[in-house]
Amino acid sequence: MSSITTPLLDDFHIHLRQGSLMGLVTPMVRSSGVGLALVMPNLRPPITTTAQAISYKKDLEKLAPGVQFLMTLYLTPELTVDEVKKAKEAGVVGVKSYPRGVTTNSDSGIESYETYYPVFKAMEECGLALNLHGEIPSDHARGVTILNAEERFLHHLVKLHDDFPRLRIVLEHATTEAAVECVKSLGPTVGCSITVHHLDLVVDDWAGQNHHFCKPVAKLPSDRDALRQVVKEGHPRFFMGTDSAPHPRHTKETAHAHAGVFVTPHTAEYLASVLDSFGALNQLSRFACENGRAFYGLTLERDVSATLTMKKHPRAVEEEFEFVDDDGVRRAVVPFWAGHTLAWQISE
Amino acid sequence: MSSITTPLLDDFHIHLRQGSLMGLVTPMVRSSGVGLALVMPNLRPPITTTAQAISYKKDLEKLAPGVQFLMTLYLTPELTVDEVKKAKEAGVVGVKSYPRGVTTNSDSGIESYETYYPVFKAMEECGLALNLHGEIPSDHARGVTILNAEERFLHHLVKLHDDFPRLRIVLEHATTEAAVECVKSLGPTVGCSITVHHLDLVVDDWAGQNHHFCKPVAKLPSDRDALRQVVKEGHPRFFMGTDSAPHPRHTKETAHAHAGVFVTPHTAEYLASVLDSFGALNQLSRFACENGRAFYGLTLERDVSATLTMKKHPRAVEEEFEFVDDDGVRRAVVPFWAGHTLAWQISE
Repeated sequence: MSSITTPLLDDFHIHLRQGSLMGLVTPMVRSSGVGLALVMPNLRPPITTTAQAISYKKDLEKLAPGVQFLMTLYLTPELTVDEVKKAKEAGVVGVKSYPRGVTTNSDSGIESYETYYPVFKAMEECGLALNLHGEIPSDHARGVTILNAEERFLHHLVKLHDDFPRLRIVLEHATTEAAVECVKSLGPTVGCSITVHHLDLVVDDWAGQNHHFCKPVAKLPSDRDALRQVVKEGHPRFFMGTDSAPHPRHTKETAHAHAGVFVTPHTAEYLASVLDSFGALNQLSRFACENGRAFYGLTLERDVSATLTMKKHPRAVEEEFEFVDDDGVRRAVVPFWAGHTLAWQISE
Repeated sequence: MSSITTPLLDDFHIHLRQGSLMGLVTPMVRSSGVGLALVMPNLRPPITTTAQAISYKKDLEKLAPGVQFLMTLYLTPELTVDEVKKAKEAGVVGVKSYPRGVTTNSDSGIESYETYYPVFKAMEECGLALNLHGEIPSDHARGVTILNAEERFLHHLVKLHDDFPRLRIVLEHATTEAAVECVKSLGPTVGCSITVHHLDLVVDDWAGQNHHFCKPVAKLPSDRDALRQVVKEGHPRFFMGTDSAPHPRHTKETAHAHAGVFVTPHTAEYLASVLDSFGALNQLSRFACENGRAFYGLTLERDVSATLTMKKHPRAVEEEFEFVDDDGVRRAVVPFWAGHTLAWQISE
């Protein structure tokens, strides 16, 4: 295969930031081959109300008119049943739960789920999804590290599904064989997003390489194999969510790097190149155009005139993308695979 | 205990570099409470001959007159039986083996041991130690990553000990429970160095934190527990080798960081603070003044007038140490725990 044509892709997990950085990355969504993006709410302050989500959506639409943005709220103790209903009516699709302190801007994250049961009940009834960052905080005395934080989280997923069988739950950015097996074992209301970079990286790749450092961290080759396998078999409840998370270079190439891999500049090209590397290019459309929509029950019309055509033709990834930050300082963001070669590229 | 007095410490694994960086770090050996240092040979070019080792030793002695330096050669296919004998006569104590490509300046590292058997035989006969960097190279198709590279190496250690039972072999900078158990199970000619930072760090600590990134990487809490336990029980074949490995800040806070933790500025203070954190301060002298000498069979006289006294009194670790590099550029090296607090300090 030397050319593929698909609908525009759906990215069911993306960080589009605020201010100047939002201005830089949001227009890249469409140019990278993505037509629909489910947007994470971990801004400062986090998006916790429908009003904020609508306002944020308008900002994004101005920057990327050709993209359909699906909005989420950040789960906090302040979220009420009424707000859940209001959010649903306004078109918000999900509520994102972050364990406290596990990733970027997660200081407002949750510590236990049971206090949220009335909210989850309302979400189940009105059809909002629960988007889970599936890691528990590290606890060295109990043997919990970033390597098993996802596996140790899975019992929460199982219990939530048990207690709310009709609630749509997404285990976001799964990185382990254990997570894949767990999601497969659960019912049709449990889905799972997988990033492009976790189909490519393993633990060795983020050791001393902060641009590959993200949360959850990439795990073992056997875990990557499981992620690849579930994509390869076209399992309908697994779909692309890139978790693209831009951080300026000076916050990555430093003593304490921020977590995140920046994929948005070339989402479709990375995906095609990575899928091709393990013989799964024929699953691109299912993984990135069909499964997510079906899982979320989206009935959005697709712009059939907008398709994506890619050709097998090598191109180098940019070393960085410059921008003027909110404080007036010129900064840059380094994309995934900076300076390396993409095997596939979008043909204009 | 609020004060301890011991002999000067022995550091059985240290990188002292070349040029300006050597000039910066070598004088710190003595001021950090260390009186004897076994020096690694991975310079550019590597120290492969007795003549080079003697010349390097003289350079070091000029910079740190109060320190006894023990020299090692870098194992390469060029090392001859004659050179082994010559090295022994000149006072060289060991030959260091690096698996190819695993760490800093290890491009000349070895790929299999059997071609070296005549050299090992000569080393066994004349009493040179074999110092092993105990990791196999990552091989993702076979499931080998930096996390299990040490455990997967151990069968080499067992076989070498089997084939050369009188050869003194040191498994350097052990990081895993598997390594501790393996060394304990072997005979009296197999020893093991443990770094100070591996008694403190786990995998979480080097994720996105390049100043904690070293090879072998710090592993799980259970592995750290095993290292702590073997020190705590005072096992005679385990001793301190800091593997202090300075790299200028710009080579750590970058996209591809060099591997190494810089411990030399405060070796004794770090060690006391770390041992105290898990109730093993009473083992400081055994771990860092006695076990290593006994294992290597050293009959060096100790300068009994030079002792080390430390008091429990908090002090902050410097943010960096500046120096003018060989290219004339002002650079800095960041020490372990920069900006954090040491519980113990040397009293003048």
